[in-house]
Amino acid sequence: MAANRDRLQEVLGYRFADPSLLELALTHRSRGARNNERLEFLGDSILNHFIAEQLFQRYSECDEGDLSRMRAALVRGEVLAELARELALGDEILLGPGERKGGGRRRDSILADALEAIVGAMLLDGGHEAARERVLAWFGERLAAVSPQSAEKDAKTSLQERLQGRGLPLPEYHLVEVQGADHCQQFTVECRLVEPVLQQCGSGSSRRRAEQAAAGAMLELLDGN
Amino acid sequence: MAANRDRLQEVLGYRFADPSLLELALTHRSRGARNNERLEFLGDSILNHFIAEQLFQRYSECDEGDLSRMRAALVRGEVLAELARELALGDEILLGPGERKGGGRRRDSILADALEAIVGAMLLDGGHEAARERVLAWFGERLAAVSPQSAEKDAKTSLQERLQGRGLPLPEYHLVEVQGADHCQQFTVECRLVEPVLQQCGSGSSRRRAEQAAAGAMLELLDGN
Repeated sequence: MAANRDRLQEVLGYRFADPSLLELALTHRSRGARNNERLEFLGDSILNHFIAEQLFQRYSECDEGDLSRMRAALVRGEVLAELARELALGDEILLGPGERKGGGRRRDSILADALEAIVGAMLLDGGHEAARERVLAWFGERLAAVSPQSAEKDAKTSLQERLQGRGLPLPEYHLVEVQGADHCQQFTVECRLVEPVLQQCGSGSSRRRAEQAAAGAMLELLDGN
Repeated sequence: MAANRDRLQEVLGYRFADPSLLELALTHRSRGARNNERLEFLGDSILNHFIAEQLFQRYSECDEGDLSRMRAALVRGEVLAELARELALGDEILLGPGERKGGGRRRDSILADALEAIVGAMLLDGGHEAARERVLAWFGERLAAVSPQSAEKDAKTSLQERLQGRGLPLPEYHLVEVQGADHCQQFTVECRLVEPVLQQCGSGSSRRRAEQAAAGAMLELLDGN
């Protein structure tokens, strides 16, 4: 076990002063009441902020809508799970017997949650700067590759692919409202699913952007459920 | 104008090294392309984290669900708008002519957004610690008053009050799933509205908690739309 934790800390690029924090971050709730959910809560909020801050600095020409979409594309559960796999986190996660038999260590949500919990544990263990440095290093390539265009394409395409993958009807997009003068119009579009019955709105400076925002909101809603 | 900004900085308890950041934070998008939306994006993420971190530290006995509910109760748009009113922010916000005539400086969303933008501006101007100190001071009483119970009561009650206020039918709650062994059951409840047609799920260690989580998710959805 100790050798595994050494290897993990090497891959993470961070050595814990208090190794019990790392253990807690790796402990899924199927193991009992003392688990990684509180650390995940903390880690989720600071991870969101590190990415927001970085996008704010790198994309000085992007508006809030673009920044939000790019952040959503980077901190989605699927992306966090991918990252957790690259760090080979799955082998290290402590699961209860049920989850272990059910292949829990391969589940996206368990991997993503553990990664967020590790970020929270690093924040407590090494402070703000140490945690930021590591998170930005882990996201390095993805932060460099993201763009308003790629994040936009992602939302509508991802939603469509996800629904098709489940054999569900495709979403419909309806223009709800256009506000503002000609040179600074704001479009609002509603994305509608018929199964499950769900509606989400999105706004943007073009109809296309508003559709992407609505698709992004729908993905977030589906992720939350 | 300079006298007003002096007074505002006194109330905020923070003096900007770069006053142009404060001006930008006070500039609503109705004034044009150079507005406070990017700062709001940055401020929203760090404000969420400051509150998350504080709740994590203060409530070491609370689980992730309780922490999330308390945070949602503290950073809701209505609460931020209240806080903005206490800081008399409305008088200082720079609006375009349309919003000015329409009473924009009293609108909850404009007030809340400007407050978040000021947090973002403080982060850029004075750094992490300075921004945290101010945010925690502003939220002082509310942070002391929040509890898992108050935050829970808030979600279902708030949702009911909001729907009644608009003359809409009340929500229905349906138990969707119970998972886990007897001593660590996880309940999932769906909150359904018939007008507008919306569904949101919530989970918790009791049916009551799951209902509150679902109501909270519905409130967030309605806030987002």
